[in-house]
Amino acid sequence: MKIVVIGASGDVGRFVVEELARDGKHDIIRVGRTQGDYQVDIASDESVDALFKKIGRIDAIIVAAGNVILAPIAEMTTANFHKGLQDKLLSQVRVALVGQHYLNDRGSITLTSGIAVDEPIAQGSNAATSNAGIEGFVRAAACDFSRGIRINAVSPTMLTESMDRFGPFFPGNESVSGARVAMAYRRSVEGVLTGRVYRVGH
Amino acid sequence: MKIVVIGASGDVGRFVVEELARDGKHDIIRVGRTQGDYQVDIASDESVDALFKKIGRIDAIIVAAGNVILAPIAEMTTANFHKGLQDKLLSQVRVALVGQHYLNDRGSITLTSGIAVDEPIAQGSNAATSNAGIEGFVRAAACDFSRGIRINAVSPTMLTESMDRFGPFFPGNESVSGARVAMAYRRSVEGVLTGRVYRVGH
Repeated sequence: MKIVVIGASGDVGRFVVEELARDGKHDIIRVGRTQGDYQVDIASDESVDALFKKIGRIDAIIVAAGNVILAPIAEMTTANFHKGLQDKLLSQVRVALVGQHYLNDRGSITLTSGIAVDEPIAQGSNAATSNAGIEGFVRAAACDFSRGIRINAVSPTMLTESMDRFGPFFPGNESVSGARVAMAYRRSVEGVLTGRVYRVGH
Repeated sequence: MKIVVIGASGDVGRFVVEELARDGKHDIIRVGRTQGDYQVDIASDESVDALFKKIGRIDAIIVAAGNVILAPIAEMTTANFHKGLQDKLLSQVRVALVGQHYLNDRGSITLTSGIAVDEPIAQGSNAATSNAGIEGFVRAAACDFSRGIRINAVSPTMLTESMDRFGPFFPGNESVSGARVAMAYRRSVEGVLTGRVYRVGH
């Protein structure tokens, strides 16, 4: 399969690329904001469309990119909340909406949500909203696609490899290895299910 | 209690006002885009802040307003998707973020999601995303508020009184009376729970 991985050098994406490249049966296209085979700004329709135009027809799209805003609810502004929604939720939806037209029949889209919606954390209202939105999108879009196009999300808990930065936000939470998280992306891409949220480590 | 109802003359809001006014124990402030005791544009921080400044300290905020965009996924554009998110998800979050500062201790916020996230409908990817986002926000914000502030959401299925317009989008779905939906808002306002999604009719 020809697989586009957006966020290919990120915390999650690099393990996804490693997992999918392991058996040599896929053609993996690494995409990043500044690194990889191609660059894209997923906050821009034009940039996303230009990316897929350059790459051509594909079999799978994986998005492991997008940041949320962490802030106490009493200090959260609408402007910051909006920024977080744009960066994680709408950007991932944009890749799905634009990218669907470049997918071969029976192609798949895999987005990335996260544990903070099932197990809220302090300062996590924006994270929970974005992640829940992604999961709602996946469940509904799966029922609406034609041509056998599938869409799923992977919801990892904190990665062991990212504990230095995120540990303080997840007190007492077990972490999960990037390698285990990456398996869920393979399950989404090579499996037959759609509208699923694959939770890993929680 | 002093209760602000935004969307007070809408499909859901008019039943909420009727229910809460029934026993004469609350001071209900009806707010609409063009009707009611006060007018507000919930797409604007300034308008929402001006509203609460005029009304002063309150005990409960109810939001039953905001539209989603229905469109087949293959025709959905990012621009329309963004518009739907702004109108339903971000507008309700805005009222919560701005309004929290005008709530008395132990005050409450009640938002409105909808069935389309649990039971996706055709053309419903935007509706599911907005509704899921609202529910994610409620679950996480509830853990982050102080001063005893609570937040819940009500998720109604199609109202019997709105079947003329929405029936075709919900084939074979039972409807629920506006009066039953309104009870869930009273439960949220007068109860003690927080972070809940009250599903009515589904």
